[in-house]
Amino acid sequence: MEANSESRTEISELGEFGLIKYLTKNFKLKNESSKIGIGDDAAVIDFKNMKSVITTDLLIEGIHFDLAYVPLKHLGYKSVVVNLSDVYAMNATPKQILISIAFSNRFSVEAIHDLYEGIYHACEQYGVDLIGGDTSNSTKGMLISVTAIGEVDEKKIVLRSTAAENDLICVSGDLGGAYLGLQILEREKRIFLENPSIQPNLEQQQYIVGRQLKPEARKDIIELLEKINVVPTSMIDISDGLSSELLHLCEDSKTGCTVYEEKIPMAEETYNQALKFNIDPVTCALSGGEDYELLFTIKQSDYEKVKDHPDISVIGHITHESMGKKLVTKGNQIHDLIAQGWNQFKK
Amino acid sequence: MEANSESRTEISELGEFGLIKYLTKNFKLKNESSKIGIGDDAAVIDFKNMKSVITTDLLIEGIHFDLAYVPLKHLGYKSVVVNLSDVYAMNATPKQILISIAFSNRFSVEAIHDLYEGIYHACEQYGVDLIGGDTSNSTKGMLISVTAIGEVDEKKIVLRSTAAENDLICVSGDLGGAYLGLQILEREKRIFLENPSIQPNLEQQQYIVGRQLKPEARKDIIELLEKINVVPTSMIDISDGLSSELLHLCEDSKTGCTVYEEKIPMAEETYNQALKFNIDPVTCALSGGEDYELLFTIKQSDYEKVKDHPDISVIGHITHESMGKKLVTKGNQIHDLIAQGWNQFKK
Repeated sequence: MEANSESRTEISELGEFGLIKYLTKNFKLKNESSKIGIGDDAAVIDFKNMKSVITTDLLIEGIHFDLAYVPLKHLGYKSVVVNLSDVYAMNATPKQILISIAFSNRFSVEAIHDLYEGIYHACEQYGVDLIGGDTSNSTKGMLISVTAIGEVDEKKIVLRSTAAENDLICVSGDLGGAYLGLQILEREKRIFLENPSIQPNLEQQQYIVGRQLKPEARKDIIELLEKINVVPTSMIDISDGLSSELLHLCEDSKTGCTVYEEKIPMAEETYNQALKFNIDPVTCALSGGEDYELLFTIKQSDYEKVKDHPDISVIGHITHESMGKKLVTKGNQIHDLIAQGWNQFKK
Repeated sequence: MEANSESRTEISELGEFGLIKYLTKNFKLKNESSKIGIGDDAAVIDFKNMKSVITTDLLIEGIHFDLAYVPLKHLGYKSVVVNLSDVYAMNATPKQILISIAFSNRFSVEAIHDLYEGIYHACEQYGVDLIGGDTSNSTKGMLISVTAIGEVDEKKIVLRSTAAENDLICVSGDLGGAYLGLQILEREKRIFLENPSIQPNLEQQQYIVGRQLKPEARKDIIELLEKINVVPTSMIDISDGLSSELLHLCEDSKTGCTVYEEKIPMAEETYNQALKFNIDPVTCALSGGEDYELLFTIKQSDYEKVKDHPDISVIGHITHESMGKKLVTKGNQIHDLIAQGWNQFKK
């Protein structure tokens, strides 16, 4: 896909159908299950004897993203990835997406093209097909609605409601980075607004800024679990912070849990940046959202299979419901886990 | 579902998860294919040996609807219906929907509840299950994103690209009403804004106002075609006006067409109201959107099966591409069909 970012073409020059054609001309159907893509009243999918999983998310300018520091290409990529993460959290393989976008007339064809370039790269990276969507103008700002569809063998579906006492609690990757990346971007925005001649220097925080701007869904973890023959007993993706997701998982499974602060995986850069911001690093891991790691439980008998994998941390275990949901601190104190996750409707 | 419309509960009192639970507590899964609904990372569907069709639409306040005259209950109903119409246009049966909504803090729990009551009634009316969605606040106004999923036997899928020369062009119901209903509502809004003491009198135009506020998807036509053993050779739903949809169908099928003005079905109320507004009634039928009727083609050999049905009109036939897309007027003049459909991006 090519576009000259210097020029500005008004959307009205193309019209809705022209715009859709222009934006989607390089998207080819890759999956056998994608029978009919964009262009008819609806798309057609055939998963044969596999089950379909389906999930949808809204991303709204000013609520979920700030175009002052989020490049449109990254936004397109991330919009897809956050939905694929939900598909992987069912232990399924994403195959198709539908994308609806609305945007005000402040956006040019070139800007929307950048967004679709990010969408395109995510489709390539994760092997999914863009099969439909809707395009509209908006009275204010931009919004993106993504629906992702995946396939899964019925026997392999993993819910969040099926954790059992004594199961081990695992988490992929490391936590808290995306939240601190956001704090840095917000700070740089404030500095820029106060003094536009100061250019942001994000080189020291490339990892955590990247966690915020260009998250990845843990396709690799789902593939690894398949390879080492581990079917998690329950799973959820971490979009709202570890605490919040762990509480969901335990509530839906009607269990308690005990997790150990010292076992919660954090990158060194995340840890150091939290200290620089005078925030408790563990709070970032527990309550910072948008890491898109997987939280899952496994049978104790599967411990040997995961224990040496650098991308999987065992952080605790599932207990009887009556034991409550507990965090054991480094100082060996026991606290109740509290969801301070990002809940936009909270007072 | 019950709510006291007199009271106002702030969304923040419930929080996002509380709100979703409250809104969806009466939605029960009815279809065997809906394996897992709301509550996990994704929903799970099983259509066994049937194919899935999937479609999505955005509805944005200030662009697609005006809450000055659209009751939220009707809006909820219509949001679902316009998506189901796309599923029927594939000759498929809708089974599931996902609904994402975003709204500013001007909306109370009671208002959102009204919206969901309309969604609930549409689900009941059409036998579909609400299986997922997303809820967010917005910086301005309300938006609704609906994804609808249906099932269809592969042999019965009807595309818009498969019309053939000499096929008969059929349309269900009558056209132009929804457009004129909108003109009436817009007029009453202007009158109200100028003089709030004047109450709107819509009784004379109940039919066409109803076509705008509470459209139905043509489930009955799909069922009828099945019953009389007619598989259309092509089909599309009429959301943007007959001309625009007919041009799509012909372009995708690489054909021409000839349609006859006198055969285009219009309700008497629509016709009379057009004259009162000094608009050519046929223009309303050709270019007025949102009727959600079905436009389809059938083999000539199927003519006897449809000709006496009051809800199906044969309006013309498919011709060779080289013949162009033509409208024959009542005065026997031949014009090119022009899409003056509702294209929001047009200059």
